[in-house]
Amino acid sequence: MATKQELIEFMRNAFPQSKSSVEEVGNLSAVVRRKIGADDLRPGGTVSGPVMFEVADVALYVALLGEIGIIPLAVTTNLSINFLRKPQADRDLLGVCKLLKVGRSLAIGEVSLYSEGSPEAVAHAVGTYSIPPQG
Amino acid sequence: MATKQELIEFMRNAFPQSKSSVEEVGNLSAVVRRKIGADDLRPGGTVSGPVMFEVADVALYVALLGEIGIIPLAVTTNLSINFLRKPQADRDLLGVCKLLKVGRSLAIGEVSLYSEGSPEAVAHAVGTYSIPPQG
Amino acid sequence: MATKQELIEFMRNAFPQSKSSVEEVGNLSAVVRRKIGADDLRPGGTVSGPVMFEVADVALYVALLGEIGIIPLAVTTNLSINFLRKPQADRDLLGVCKLLKVGRSLAIGEVSLYSEGSPEAVAHAVGTYSIPPQG
Amino acid sequence: MATKQELIEFMRNAFPQSKSSVEEVGNLSAVVRRKIGADDLRPGGTVSGPVMFEVADVALYVALLGEIGIIPLAVTTNLSINFLRKPQADRDLLGVCKLLKVGRSLAIGEVSLYSEGSPEAVAHAVGTYSIPPQG
Repeated sequence: MATKQELIEFMRNAFPQSKSSVEEVGNLSAVVRRKIGADDLRPGGTVSGPVMFEVADVALYVALLGEIGIIPLAVTTNLSINFLRKPQADRDLLGVCKLLKVGRSLAIGEVSLYSEGSPEAVAHAVGTYSIPPQG
Repeated sequence: MATKQELIEFMRNAFPQSKSSVEEVGNLSAVVRRKIGADDLRPGGTVSGPVMFEVADVALYVALLGEIGIIPLAVTTNLSINFLRKPQADRDLLGVCKLLKVGRSLAIGEVSLYSEGSPEAVAHAVGTYSIPPQG
Repeated sequence: MATKQELIEFMRNAFPQSKSSVEEVGNLSAVVRRKIGADDLRPGGTVSGPVMFEVADVALYVALLGEIGIIPLAVTTNLSINFLRKPQADRDLLGVCKLLKVGRSLAIGEVSLYSEGSPEAVAHAVGTYSIPPQG
Repeated sequence: MATKQELIEFMRNAFPQSKSSVEEVGNLSAVVRRKIGADDLRPGGTVSGPVMFEVADVALYVALLGEIGIIPLAVTTNLSINFLRKPQADRDLLGVCKLLKVGRSLAIGEVSLYSEGSPEAVAHAVGTYSIPPQG
């Protein structure tokens, strides 16, 4: 297991250019926040798909490391995302992850993405991480 | 919208051979129950994948018709299922569906499947239904 | 690796009630055939979703065992299926699998499903199998 | 239908900052090329997941517009991606899309992603686009 503070430091060191930050972690769950800037938008003023993918993936990663400890080599093997509603261009994106299973070699979780302040999810993702064997 | 009683009758008439029954419906959600018999098992005493697929699909269908009314021609366009834990051979399977979005032509929902009496899901599915245009 | 003859015998013994048969296997691929009977149909004369799921899953399993040998405990962890066209009620269903990757602990493949005699796929699936550690 | 030249111009105007370019389009298929730079890499020298997601999504979009003509408001509703092998940091990424179905309101396609020069796919995606009603 890793604490919120350990994860904040690990993410800052491992992904210094990341625009996502750890809000909460623990109990098989995590919340991450992503600042949205001009680079993240698509024509029409909506957040791009790759940015939403990224937030879902980071939320899964943080929730998983919160559970198994800092094992950086955990890698995404599958991520399936459904786009539900148009995100707001001027709001942070929040990724709320709940792990469905953490096995010996695989972990599966779901993530709901929200534009901050809106109650309805803009996207929903389910992803699988492969956990490398620990020596 | 359709009531629980309307859905019970519709399902009984439209799918008379179905082993699934409607337990709850409403508020963008549904619960269906599936009796498990010898035909539904795989070697090793676990419930077969197609049976779990079927329960997920029925739960989505019931939740959707509860919301939009009895529109039988709604059809599944995609269903993605993750198998999490071994279901129990001697327990009913429960499918608990929550719709994530009901649009004009598409609806998306998630389903957690449980062996009755166990708190941890045996599978988790996300599916999309296509809603035919209404005259 | 397992030959077509070995797989035909294994499947017959392990799943004696199965309606699917092995047509081809080898080179990271497989073809399975599924007889369609009255029990497999939905109102409107189309093949039910769970039957299509089953054929996709069997095709993946056969292709995988053809590659890694008869390791019965390989289990599906995820299967995502898109329904493309209405299958024909009076034709066998063919599942054509191509493995995309066979790793140490995970294998991933795609399956196209056809009503025999029609060139366009009725469904397309992508699935992941977990391969148990070999002593 | 839209020609390769029309799509090159449309993409350049609509997404001027995009690093992807149209290589081929037609016959329900497309090939797009993505330059990989320092910003696209993850620790360990691999291409980031969001970049692979983006290439898959662009390849689907280009193949679809090649088929239905320049209808910019087509939007991704679902994208499921499997990561198969580590992409190379110093090679362009190629996205090869084949549409599986183009219906009235939905289109579905699959995309294989390659590091240029390597025969084995680094990722495989399946995605669905929603096509807006045409006046």
